[in-house]
Amino acid sequence: MDIDVIEQLLENYKIGKVPMHDVLEKIRELPYKDIGFAKVDSHRKIRCGFPEVIFCLGKTPEQVVKIAGHIVAGENDMLATRATREMYEAVSREFPEAVYHEQARTITIRKTRRKPHKGLILIITAGTSDIPVAEEARVTAEIMGNTVRVLYDVGVAGIHRLMKNHSELLKANVIIVVAGMEGALASVVGGLVDCPVIGVPTSIGYGASFSGITPLLSMLNSCASGVSVVNIDNGFGAAYAASLINRTKK
Amino acid sequence: MDIDVIEQLLENYKIGKVPMHDVLEKIRELPYKDIGFAKVDSHRKIRCGFPEVIFCLGKTPEQVVKIAGHIVAGENDMLATRATREMYEAVSREFPEAVYHEQARTITIRKTRRKPHKGLILIITAGTSDIPVAEEARVTAEIMGNTVRVLYDVGVAGIHRLMKNHSELLKANVIIVVAGMEGALASVVGGLVDCPVIGVPTSIGYGASFSGITPLLSMLNSCASGVSVVNIDNGFGAAYAASLINRTKK
Amino acid sequence: MDIDVIEQLLENYKIGKVPMHDVLEKIRELPYKDIGFAKVDSHRKIRCGFPEVIFCLGKTPEQVVKIAGHIVAGENDMLATRATREMYEAVSREFPEAVYHEQARTITIRKTRRKPHKGLILIITAGTSDIPVAEEARVTAEIMGNTVRVLYDVGVAGIHRLMKNHSELLKANVIIVVAGMEGALASVVGGLVDCPVIGVPTSIGYGASFSGITPLLSMLNSCASGVSVVNIDNGFGAAYAASLINRTKK
Amino acid sequence: MDIDVIEQLLENYKIGKVPMHDVLEKIRELPYKDIGFAKVDSHRKIRCGFPEVIFCLGKTPEQVVKIAGHIVAGENDMLATRATREMYEAVSREFPEAVYHEQARTITIRKTRRKPHKGLILIITAGTSDIPVAEEARVTAEIMGNTVRVLYDVGVAGIHRLMKNHSELLKANVIIVVAGMEGALASVVGGLVDCPVIGVPTSIGYGASFSGITPLLSMLNSCASGVSVVNIDNGFGAAYAASLINRTKK
Amino acid sequence: MDIDVIEQLLENYKIGKVPMHDVLEKIRELPYKDIGFAKVDSHRKIRCGFPEVIFCLGKTPEQVVKIAGHIVAGENDMLATRATREMYEAVSREFPEAVYHEQARTITIRKTRRKPHKGLILIITAGTSDIPVAEEARVTAEIMGNTVRVLYDVGVAGIHRLMKNHSELLKANVIIVVAGMEGALASVVGGLVDCPVIGVPTSIGYGASFSGITPLLSMLNSCASGVSVVNIDNGFGAAYAASLINRTKK
Amino acid sequence: MDIDVIEQLLENYKIGKVPMHDVLEKIRELPYKDIGFAKVDSHRKIRCGFPEVIFCLGKTPEQVVKIAGHIVAGENDMLATRATREMYEAVSREFPEAVYHEQARTITIRKTRRKPHKGLILIITAGTSDIPVAEEARVTAEIMGNTVRVLYDVGVAGIHRLMKNHSELLKANVIIVVAGMEGALASVVGGLVDCPVIGVPTSIGYGASFSGITPLLSMLNSCASGVSVVNIDNGFGAAYAASLINRTKK
Amino acid sequence: MDIDVIEQLLENYKIGKVPMHDVLEKIRELPYKDIGFAKVDSHRKIRCGFPEVIFCLGKTPEQVVKIAGHIVAGENDMLATRATREMYEAVSREFPEAVYHEQARTITIRKTRRKPHKGLILIITAGTSDIPVAEEARVTAEIMGNTVRVLYDVGVAGIHRLMKNHSELLKANVIIVVAGMEGALASVVGGLVDCPVIGVPTSIGYGASFSGITPLLSMLNSCASGVSVVNIDNGFGAAYAASLINRTKK
Amino acid sequence: MDIDVIEQLLENYKIGKVPMHDVLEKIRELPYKDIGFAKVDSHRKIRCGFPEVIFCLGKTPEQVVKIAGHIVAGENDMLATRATREMYEAVSREFPEAVYHEQARTITIRKTRRKPHKGLILIITAGTSDIPVAEEARVTAEIMGNTVRVLYDVGVAGIHRLMKNHSELLKANVIIVVAGMEGALASVVGGLVDCPVIGVPTSIGYGASFSGITPLLSMLNSCASGVSVVNIDNGFGAAYAASLINRTKK
Repeated sequence: MDIDVIEQLLENYKIGKVPMHDVLEKIRELPYKDIGFAKVDSHRKIRCGFPEVIFCLGKTPEQVVKIAGHIVAGENDMLATRATREMYEAVSREFPEAVYHEQARTITIRKTRRKPHKGLILIITAGTSDIPVAEEARVTAEIMGNTVRVLYDVGVAGIHRLMKNHSELLKANVIIVVAGMEGALASVVGGLVDCPVIGVPTSIGYGASFSGITPLLSMLNSCASGVSVVNIDNGFGAAYAASLINRTKK
Repeated sequence: MDIDVIEQLLENYKIGKVPMHDVLEKIRELPYKDIGFAKVDSHRKIRCGFPEVIFCLGKTPEQVVKIAGHIVAGENDMLATRATREMYEAVSREFPEAVYHEQARTITIRKTRRKPHKGLILIITAGTSDIPVAEEARVTAEIMGNTVRVLYDVGVAGIHRLMKNHSELLKANVIIVVAGMEGALASVVGGLVDCPVIGVPTSIGYGASFSGITPLLSMLNSCASGVSVVNIDNGFGAAYAASLINRTKK
Repeated sequence: MDIDVIEQLLENYKIGKVPMHDVLEKIRELPYKDIGFAKVDSHRKIRCGFPEVIFCLGKTPEQVVKIAGHIVAGENDMLATRATREMYEAVSREFPEAVYHEQARTITIRKTRRKPHKGLILIITAGTSDIPVAEEARVTAEIMGNTVRVLYDVGVAGIHRLMKNHSELLKANVIIVVAGMEGALASVVGGLVDCPVIGVPTSIGYGASFSGITPLLSMLNSCASGVSVVNIDNGFGAAYAASLINRTKK
Repeated sequence: MDIDVIEQLLENYKIGKVPMHDVLEKIRELPYKDIGFAKVDSHRKIRCGFPEVIFCLGKTPEQVVKIAGHIVAGENDMLATRATREMYEAVSREFPEAVYHEQARTITIRKTRRKPHKGLILIITAGTSDIPVAEEARVTAEIMGNTVRVLYDVGVAGIHRLMKNHSELLKANVIIVVAGMEGALASVVGGLVDCPVIGVPTSIGYGASFSGITPLLSMLNSCASGVSVVNIDNGFGAAYAASLINRTKK
Repeated sequence: MDIDVIEQLLENYKIGKVPMHDVLEKIRELPYKDIGFAKVDSHRKIRCGFPEVIFCLGKTPEQVVKIAGHIVAGENDMLATRATREMYEAVSREFPEAVYHEQARTITIRKTRRKPHKGLILIITAGTSDIPVAEEARVTAEIMGNTVRVLYDVGVAGIHRLMKNHSELLKANVIIVVAGMEGALASVVGGLVDCPVIGVPTSIGYGASFSGITPLLSMLNSCASGVSVVNIDNGFGAAYAASLINRTKK
Repeated sequence: MDIDVIEQLLENYKIGKVPMHDVLEKIRELPYKDIGFAKVDSHRKIRCGFPEVIFCLGKTPEQVVKIAGHIVAGENDMLATRATREMYEAVSREFPEAVYHEQARTITIRKTRRKPHKGLILIITAGTSDIPVAEEARVTAEIMGNTVRVLYDVGVAGIHRLMKNHSELLKANVIIVVAGMEGALASVVGGLVDCPVIGVPTSIGYGASFSGITPLLSMLNSCASGVSVVNIDNGFGAAYAASLINRTKK
Repeated sequence: MDIDVIEQLLENYKIGKVPMHDVLEKIRELPYKDIGFAKVDSHRKIRCGFPEVIFCLGKTPEQVVKIAGHIVAGENDMLATRATREMYEAVSREFPEAVYHEQARTITIRKTRRKPHKGLILIITAGTSDIPVAEEARVTAEIMGNTVRVLYDVGVAGIHRLMKNHSELLKANVIIVVAGMEGALASVVGGLVDCPVIGVPTSIGYGASFSGITPLLSMLNSCASGVSVVNIDNGFGAAYAASLINRTKK
Repeated sequence: MDIDVIEQLLENYKIGKVPMHDVLEKIRELPYKDIGFAKVDSHRKIRCGFPEVIFCLGKTPEQVVKIAGHIVAGENDMLATRATREMYEAVSREFPEAVYHEQARTITIRKTRRKPHKGLILIITAGTSDIPVAEEARVTAEIMGNTVRVLYDVGVAGIHRLMKNHSELLKANVIIVVAGMEGALASVVGGLVDCPVIGVPTSIGYGASFSGITPLLSMLNSCASGVSVVNIDNGFGAAYAASLINRTKK
């Protein structure tokens, strides 16, 4: 419901076609679908540029299917994160075009066709164990209309692996750095480029990595400027922010 | 030292003007100034788009003046953060054009004149006590060539203060949200806009705010997508990242 | 055992019907049932207004049945929280009128019939994953004689969902806000109403939500006044406190 | 600005006295005073039942005076917490009727005269060192129109001191328990009464009391039901919540 | 190996029966049994008054049997804590007189017969879920030759349950208080008696009890003097310390 | 007020000398002195064996003097911990016999003369910086009627310093181990003796000693049995517990 | 690719056999094998003295086999840590000479034959439960060409067990101390020897050992000088560092 | 007192020159000087290769002078860390040859003359603010007889500054990496060299650097092998360990 609708409403009220009560009522009525256990934010696409995303953790397969249905019904692209294979199977029975991304644990249904944004999002991981989080980022960035490249296993223990790809780094419009253990990669990359860097700490490691606290703190204290950080293992969030950044390039 | 210089070097080596030893030596020689206690990263402007910034904490006024001198000597804009008034006075004796920003605790010396980037950076605070951190962000964003607007004291305890400024939010290309206590403002703003939001938790609060840990954690767990976070009280870092984002808009 | 009984006792002692030893003994004898592994606090209803509640975590089904028996024997309403289905089945074999609330993981047996308190308790959740905790609160508030309404999935990422229900908020006598992730909903609600707000942080989230520490800290630092907080996932405790508040309205 | 004003506006718009642009503008205009560094929430009294309270930490005396002026101008009672004596002196130069509560570190200006609420708020401390926090609660509760009694130094190390005052506890409509160290008093009190109990952990203690974390955790885990908790040393917040509870009793 | 043996050795060396090398060697040889994966401290009974206790966590049933064998071989009482039923079965195949204490998860083999110490050790729990830890303490104290009484489920939520047993408390020579959640029981008991109190925090609780951190901190900050604390769930350690205390009474 | 008084009261009531109201009133009246800001626990000596101790932190010199007066008035020994020299001077103006223990930061006034308990309390420190905490323990133990010996600077970095004093250790009835940094001394001592060991972690150290958290955790996890622990820097508490233990030896 | 190769390249370029583009390209090309999901650091042996080690956590058996293949192909010794038996079976199907070390959870394939370093690495554990971590260290140190001795179960609770082996300690060139619980062993050993000591905290313990945080902090605060520390349970890392130290002895 | 002395003693005892009592006594007498408040470990040089070092924190200037006197009296080199200028002045009055190292906050008195160890210790810092800690390391390493080089301000934000000094890194026998903020430098250096690396996290930084916790955790989780870690700001400890390593090279 946008500003035009409200103007129309006020004009109709003025000419007596609509009583005051209805005007007050309409102003109240905000655009979401109440489906009992959830209020699907159908307005989000207009407001934030992308429809609501389903965060599957703690939901039943039935709930996921139901919410997915409401999103798809609006001819929107559908993205569901932290999805189990069982959830995927439930969704694909309703929507055979649904795709499951195993490593990324995400389900996508593509409804729109548009030219990708011009800028490049580069996703880098420190190790091979960080790949699932990076894949969540990749799937998210792609469904949101971006061109994505990945560069995996270039952690600082063998810094020549990163250095050799220096020119790749320079091509990116935004870089997502996915790293566990001590998360030093974000700082090193941040010092090499002139584009925004988003750090995603991962829970990879053991002992004093404290399930990702160490790389989280590390990235927050990056000695390189221009690095901002999202939650541990939050590949989706990093890609969402990267996509908002990337859209600004025209 | 850029790629042209290396090509020239190799050509000179080929025609015998330069011996192999010198070629190997030059490849080694990376571009920074060694001034004893510090290695001023004079190459950073080429690499990252803005010259090295002086982080004054733990430095003597003399050290700040000396590093500032090397930056200014290269006809670069100079920015010094976490600067005391005493440091400013030392700097201004050498560089009378230096400006001290009291609340922001920063010193700037402007050497360049360029048209600001087109996009708008909006800086929002939850309370009045968050203003010094926001001011550090404002000064940083401005010296880096951005147009900045501020919106202070619009925390969620009286959410109508924010709502009334909804249209202001929509004009921004990047938004920096500065908030202490529970840091809820970042989530609310993140849910209202379609541009990147950078959260800066502040150490404002007491007791279980734990000098900023609470808003830090809060922002990292933002239920709104597109929010990334920098270190507690790091107004500079947020503005630096925002500036990198803003530059991408042409 | 109330004050009248003691007065009677003293009078009987005075006229010689009761020896001093018995008086001393009776004063000692406090009203609880010792059933070996537990001391059922049969006095609590008189003291605190509601009989003892069974916290099932770490108890065997047999123990739950046995304690339930002692509560029901006193013609009291019975509430058992954190109850498994297996416990319910054991209880319902003895008390077929027992009801199991699946999502809320609680068992209730209603023995009393009284008119509910006049005030309204409103229970709000930020997301759908917070519903089980909210349901524990709902069942608790209802067995304690309150009228309850619920408003689920109105988190601040789409704040219009909350705003549209503003008038609902204003009808409540007490509001329970159930939220995980960054828990910002408590602050926003607290700033919109003039009744007490009780925050229940939930363990919903991942990474730096630290199983509910983040919303807990967030709610404790709420910039809105009038918000108090209970333990993570403690829907029962919030409803119990809300019920005590609600009873004061006559 | 209440609903009547909006109805009037719409009627005037209908009869052509007000153009549409003005209607849209007015709907936007929410009631707060923008005084540059702060947006005084002049609407809060209508919304939340008490005018905005000044949290002085991190503000200059001048800022405190200026905000106080705007509150008093509306013929509202003024409460400023965490106020230094220096701030009080600045305020009292403008408002000689201002009162400084030394232990409570608060400033009050009373503008209204109304009969206090009927219910009693009882404030209890475990030790003598907890008194300043309790006093902040007392001053807050009184300016908000409540009858308050205090019971200081009745911690559980000598539980008979509490027990002797059992009848005092039973008279209260709400009880605020202020305790540092291990904060056990909240649990014991919670088990003795049938009214809501609000725990205020204090930073009193040393070593493993961790500036109030221990009593905070302790109160959150109270084995007695009906206890809710506010931030460490937050006497104001406890009294504010208690006042909202107390008002419900008619 | 005690001082007599050394004196004998020196005398033999003096008269030439033993060469110097052997004397030096013997002084080195400390009394423990090396059984490959473990060095059984057979000297401990002489040094510390009770033979080595087997802490079963992380050991295989075979290792437990083997170590138990070495202890029993010395005609010592055997105590194994954190023992699984599987371990018990392995042990009982070798030592049919072994007893398994299900709740306490301990195995005992009694080899000695002595009159128990005169003093009484009293073990108190706050709730029924704390009983397994209390049972570990009971079994330990008994095998170490103490008279033990228990008083379970007397937590402070219904403090009359404790008060009624005040005279029981006064009979004890040492009191072990086992409590989870907020652990307030230790403080209350500590304020009622004149004997040493040992607090055992348990991991009973959820959310902000943090697996026992809350009662641990609570007990360390007890406002009652004379309370010392052992590790979370360490019923064994508390009983061991209590036993050392109890032995001093003659 | 002991049981005899109550019996007398009841008898007087029976023969009509005392009305019922007075009996009920007396039962209520518990023995403490209410001096406004504090309720001096004059009953504690009877209940716990030693009069109330003044914990000076957060009290004014005037308050300390006033409470001290009430304790001394009852011909009790007076102990005040965490006392500043300024407090001492205030106290000594009233009570010239007061003694200030500089390192221990305690004030004592001795009123009683009794033979010390037979058992020996040994106080050991790991380093010289731990001595102030040890001295607080020493003064406490002495005023409570114990014979005390000290052994300072025998930390495990040079374990022969401890070993040489092994026979000293064996003479003690209770040992207090005061140690900062890693607190290993408690474990080593615990493994060498057969008497109770009380560990006092100190805040000595820097960096990852976290103001005493490290030795606190270390002592709680002591691999030697029989070690219990008090709060960081709590020399008083350790000595109080040690004194209760020591009294049991006759 | 070493310096000779580069010299050759430059000479060939000079004489025209290689175009400039190729020279620039080669300089870029750093020596690692890109196998899709991983970039095997084949250059590490030259750079760091030992080939890349496979950290198996989070990898599939197939990935382990593939990486192992690339390492073995270079005639390098292969070490895989945190390996499951399933991984071993997959590896041994390809490389029958692979050895699985059950307790140490490592796989080794020995390809080289060289004389071990002269110095001795001694590995000590406090308890039997620390042995798996110690075994990981032993296997690592041996495949890296060291002579290793072990001394297990010599924790400080029975310090004579350590003292008796004092001469063993003095023979070592480096000592690795593996300990959980309070980790005191590292300090005691550090004070007895004049060689470097590397502490490995283990996650052995419960309650306040916090999965190894306690011994970690303890070792970092060792009162003995010369102790450095690696991550919790990181037997591999300790042995790697010890091996680098040991190699320096010629 | 070394083994020769003991042999002599035993021989004298055998021929009757020394009674048994004296032999037993001498074995007990371990070599330290008891100077009242401290037990100076005069044996340490023999045992650990360097005399006791004075850790000045928490000592008075008089105590420092007294302990220094005992060390110097034995013709040992004297090192005092965390020393204030005031302490230095007190020491230099007694020992005019004492040297104060301002940045390093250490006092040294050199008594011995020996050729330094052959190996090189390289000390690297990430920033200029880390220099004081690095200087403590430098002074320590030099007084312990090592050749030291330093490389300051080569943090990873401008990694070319480190890369240019790659050949310097390769010359070292041990490298000490001193870094605050995110401490990434340790990992990068660890991946470039084949010698042991000791990380020293510093408390440089703010907000989420938590006074050095972040670089501490970061270094403990280094993805490069061969890195071990000492306490925050512990330049002394790192140099001590480095010196023990360096001595092994002959």
